Amino acid sequence: MNNPPRIAIAGVTGAVGQEFLEIIEQRDFPFSSLKMLASARSAGKQQAFKGEAYPIEELTGDSFGDVDIALFSAGGSISRKFGPAAAEAGCVVVDNSSAFRMDQNTPLVVPEVNSGDISGHQGIIANPNCSTIIMNVPVWPLHQAVGVKRIVVSTYQAASGAGAAAMAELEQQAKDWVAGDELTQDIFGRQYIWNLFSHNSNINPETGYNEEEEKMIKETRKIFHDDSIQVAATCVRVPVLRAHCESVNLTFEKPLSEDEAREILKAAPGVTVMDDRDSNRHPEPLDASHEDDVFVGRIRGDASQADGYGLEMFIAGDQIRKGAALNAIQIAEALVEGVAV
Amino acid sequence: MNNPPRIAIAGVTGAVGQEFLEIIEQRDFPFSSLKMLASARSAGKQQAFKGEAYPIEELTGDSFGDVDIALFSAGGSISRKFGPAAAEAGCVVVDNSSAFRMDQNTPLVVPEVNSGDISGHQGIIANPNCSTIIMNVPVWPLHQAVGVKRIVVSTYQAASGAGAAAMAELEQQAKDWVAGDELTQDIFGRQYIWNLFSHNSNINPETGYNEEEEKMIKETRKIFHDDSIQVAATCVRVPVLRAHCESVNLTFEKPLSEDEAREILKAAPGVTVMDDRDSNRHPEPLDASHEDDVFVGRIRGDASQADGYGLEMFIAGDQIRKGAALNAIQIAEALVEGVAV
Repeated sequence: MNNPPRIAIAGVTGAVGQEFLEIIEQRDFPFSSLKMLASARSAGKQQAFKGEAYPIEELTGDSFGDVDIALFSAGGSISRKFGPAAAEAGCVVVDNSSAFRMDQNTPLVVPEVNSGDISGHQGIIANPNCSTIIMNVPVWPLHQAVGVKRIVVSTYQAASGAGAAAMAELEQQAKDWVAGDELTQDIFGRQYIWNLFSHNSNINPETGYNEEEEKMIKETRKIFHDDSIQVAATCVRVPVLRAHCESVNLTFEKPLSEDEAREILKAAPGVTVMDDRDSNRHPEPLDASHEDDVFVGRIRGDASQADGYGLEMFIAGDQIRKGAALNAIQIAEALVEGVAV
Repeated sequence: MNNPPRIAIAGVTGAVGQEFLEIIEQRDFPFSSLKMLASARSAGKQQAFKGEAYPIEELTGDSFGDVDIALFSAGGSISRKFGPAAAEAGCVVVDNSSAFRMDQNTPLVVPEVNSGDISGHQGIIANPNCSTIIMNVPVWPLHQAVGVKRIVVSTYQAASGAGAAAMAELEQQAKDWVAGDELTQDIFGRQYIWNLFSHNSNINPETGYNEEEEKMIKETRKIFHDDSIQVAATCVRVPVLRAHCESVNLTFEKPLSEDEAREILKAAPGVTVMDDRDSNRHPEPLDASHEDDVFVGRIRGDASQADGYGLEMFIAGDQIRKGAALNAIQIAEALVEGVAV
């Protein structure tokens, strides 16, 4: 791999694609060339970056011959179509879709948890589901300390997880509602403002769990290298523009006091503890928006379990940032630093 | 007690007070006289009801001499100040505040669960917390069937629980946001639209649980007559105007299949099952708004517990209606029917 690498962004016009650019600039991610890739619809347009206008090129099978690291966020079908060919051409793909996450030859990585898995890649490294990443960052250090046996999690997910058009529809519904007009319902087919609904992914007819929930269950086991960890997940879309929250209930193998848990979380990478009982200030979506860290609050011993064996917390993380673009760029940074080249 | 009874509404100008009137009319609740009581600020104004204009009178210690049933929803301090005197005067108080809920001489009643407790009253019957009522209605029939050992619940609570002014502020924030103005923040002191936050009740500095969560824990035990039931509750305010949702995870004493649970819930009083995996239609706040029943969906065996020993579901109930006014009027109906007179 060249150092600095030649990089490409596949799906640069999407919400995550745009966030890639912002983070590359903020973190001064090194590159010797930067290719902006999107669908034919956007090809020929220009993408501003660091004061320069980059041409947007159509994403094709030939896009990756001169690329060292490709950040993919253009949906699962695009990843399946072009990811393996890009890897074949010698490029390392960091893929934000679900296409390869559970493939046994593909590392699934949250850098704060299992950056060591990066080195085993065979050309593709998968970025986990956003809700999974946000949950795993604070749960992992507790798991390391005393072993997490079971997680019961309920999510409060923002429109951002369904893309820029979904965020725009929610904003449009506010305008429609204030104007007294009929609400625009092109994306979700329902009123979203002043409402909430079970996550808009398909439900497994056998288990009753939807795809988002199954991702949280299966991906956590893969990332933690622990197939015994039990996860009960309920994923819900709430009328928030950006940043997901999660109510997390843990059962431990060994006891851990609330104070010990708080100290572990304060020292954990990627975590900001915001837990003020007196002023009742705990993580909110607006706190986490555009921030790198996962915010953790409402840390308390679970009154419903044996003393020390349960913990509750409420967390918030930026879905587009740590839940997608930032996590992928952290993986790319590890590649550049030579961890896995 | 006269039959039909002479009734009074204490706090008639509030969100729940207004809902009392709507439900009394809809259910054709019998009364021989109806007294509209509020603070001195509203006294002298008029309250329309069934095409008539009723004078609003100031709530005082002398208000209840000619009243058989008083529906109180004017806050805990008003209930503490006037409830016992009203009971002393021979009136039966159905109190929507938290003032007497945990008093051992006061029945705490969800009619679908423990209407038998009404007869033990000593002049005051307490209406439970809204989130507690909404959870108890569908959990109770499952508890009767196989015994519920533990509940892990996370709430998605509407602005309505904080009163009419809170609902108005959330609506005003939508108008402010669309107009590009600074957001009105008089009630909650924060941006509420596009945001969510840990419930705005005080947090117990020892346990870390807030008052709303402690109510769900303690009141459920009292209503179910089961001090062994364990409840882990996380209460969250979301930008929804009306109707609370709850993500409920249950652990049973004895196994219960998902299909058996669904049949029990379909047959349960006060429950509407809305659980369509194919079309992904499950309870939303807008489904439950202005409805009597608690809506139950996402019914599925909990993959994280031994087969049959865990169940997950997502529920929605109108906080003002079943969570407050309707439940109180159901108690009053039981009184009129002679259960406890």
